[in-house]
Amino acid sequence: MTPRPILAVTLGDPAGTGPELLARALADPAVRAVCRPVVVGDAGVLRAAAAIVGSPVPVVAIPRIDPAAGAGEGVIEVLDLANVDLSRLVRGRVSPACGQAAYEAIRGAVTCVLEGHAHAVVTSALNKAALHAAGHRHEGHTELLAELCGVTDVTMMLVADRLRVCHVSTHVSLREAIERVRPERIRRVIALARDGVRELGVAEPHIAVAGLNPHAGEGGIFGDEEIRHITPAIEAAKADGFRVSGPYAGDTVFARAADGQFDCAIAMYHDQGHIAAKMLGIWRGVNVTLGLPLIRTSVEHGTDFENAGTGRGDPRSLIQALLLAATTARHRLHSTGSALRPIPPR
Amino acid sequence: MTPRPILAVTLGDPAGTGPELLARALADPAVRAVCRPVVVGDAGVLRAAAAIVGSPVPVVAIPRIDPAAGAGEGVIEVLDLANVDLSRLVRGRVSPACGQAAYEAIRGAVTCVLEGHAHAVVTSALNKAALHAAGHRHEGHTELLAELCGVTDVTMMLVADRLRVCHVSTHVSLREAIERVRPERIRRVIALARDGVRELGVAEPHIAVAGLNPHAGEGGIFGDEEIRHITPAIEAAKADGFRVSGPYAGDTVFARAADGQFDCAIAMYHDQGHIAAKMLGIWRGVNVTLGLPLIRTSVEHGTDFENAGTGRGDPRSLIQALLLAATTARHRLHSTGSALRPIPPR
Repeated sequence: MTPRPILAVTLGDPAGTGPELLARALADPAVRAVCRPVVVGDAGVLRAAAAIVGSPVPVVAIPRIDPAAGAGEGVIEVLDLANVDLSRLVRGRVSPACGQAAYEAIRGAVTCVLEGHAHAVVTSALNKAALHAAGHRHEGHTELLAELCGVTDVTMMLVADRLRVCHVSTHVSLREAIERVRPERIRRVIALARDGVRELGVAEPHIAVAGLNPHAGEGGIFGDEEIRHITPAIEAAKADGFRVSGPYAGDTVFARAADGQFDCAIAMYHDQGHIAAKMLGIWRGVNVTLGLPLIRTSVEHGTDFENAGTGRGDPRSLIQALLLAATTARHRLHSTGSALRPIPPR
Repeated sequence: MTPRPILAVTLGDPAGTGPELLARALADPAVRAVCRPVVVGDAGVLRAAAAIVGSPVPVVAIPRIDPAAGAGEGVIEVLDLANVDLSRLVRGRVSPACGQAAYEAIRGAVTCVLEGHAHAVVTSALNKAALHAAGHRHEGHTELLAELCGVTDVTMMLVADRLRVCHVSTHVSLREAIERVRPERIRRVIALARDGVRELGVAEPHIAVAGLNPHAGEGGIFGDEEIRHITPAIEAAKADGFRVSGPYAGDTVFARAADGQFDCAIAMYHDQGHIAAKMLGIWRGVNVTLGLPLIRTSVEHGTDFENAGTGRGDPRSLIQALLLAATTARHRLHSTGSALRPIPPR
């Protein structure tokens, strides 16, 4: 039997619902059956969160991850960064101290995997304003992870039920997103999508590419990016042996992918893919970063400050993120023997 | 008891599934209970469609709509335009003859309502290429209806389950859509949305406005249209007494509206609203045109040429369009005594 993959799970912003969601999700038998999660962050915050949600599972601080440890059974392990002053923690509020703690948890989790102590990173929500206030001026989680891993060529895949969506761009203005619809980038995202979906166990994924304009431009009547950039990228990818088709009208391609007609759909910009995924449930989607050397999944929601401290946060996205990381790590370990993957040259 | 509203229902493109869907939907007791539908189009095509779907309900050609007629009971009435040569009809194919027949059905249905013989127009799918081939070079159905009614200031509302979405623009390129995000247009769409939702029986609808950029621009980091155009429009509408809020992140506002948190959401462009609606079911949504003097609902799908002649088309969107037109007509008749509404001055 393959041992359960070890997941380095970030605490997220200590002032958000992240710690409470962890206290609930990591007690879930379905999660524990398929992985050994180790939280990276402040143990005191996690213990306080466990008390808030009334979790009976003890939180055990560990100084390092012991691959042979039995401590993971029946307890929640936390690689204690001891970086939050609990007496000064104000839940539901942006603070530089919490932004810094969240940053350190991410860096710690990445280090665990890059150094071979864990098999995947799962991230809880961070607050961008807090991150920025702490002096870390990244566009978001994904960009920070890319920097920590020394890569630039990444993309976000959203997974919600049967829907998988990859994005040509995400956190840029819609004007800028249009400029990023270019054949090279589209081809790269198609390649990242294929590799990412293969790691979920689909041998030869069928990838559908959305158009940028309404009705995919309707033959050039409503914009010509399909003719100039998207169709050439699809044709080139086909010539390279990819199982890819499109461009399809944006308003139906994601519904068709959610219906199982495609293994992955490529969105031309943030909202195209995110609206589709969130219509399936705001609290159910998972965010996967493709193009990193390590496996990373994430909750697909924010810090939910308004529910912080109440125990009422919704852990479904986190549970799905843990399960998906476990599946992917198991698949990669089984097929390559390593959780890390060399980044292919461009 | 208020008499059932009379709906003038277009046949749609005779080569598509429209006639077959009508033969099925108009036999539905839930539809017949709330309205008296009269098809406008070629009676021969409708009879052939009834035979294809195996409908036992007789198709009866009528020369004009008799408001006191009992002929509507137990039969499908059709205001026979006798404008299709059935022996030359090729289903599933674009033809100028079918485009012309579809055009004449729309014109006929609009005339019925404008002249007071019916209370609402319900449209089946038309094929834009066929319409253009017949010399009618409109962007689509909505633009054609606006022209026939002598108005320009219309917008599309999609209705799917609890989700209602109105659009700042629809059938233009995404580049052009960004240019149309301007305070005057947004305010006008908010006003049209409020009036439209009121007619569905919501006295003071709460209208949510989406942002244009990811995360509604995140304070200007990802684009400034929210700051320059959208927020000023919302503030002005509030000052005018509208119950309106936003801008909200596009990726969650439609999910929240579908969850019942808002009575209507305003999309900044076609795909934003259409992706949301179609994720609830490609074959279930209804399209409503706001800003016309008459009530118009429509199927929210195309001619589905691949299923034409097979009897396998999905009539759910048509059934919903009929029910919604009936509800709206009943509400307008009850509150104003007339199915027609004067267009308010700008």
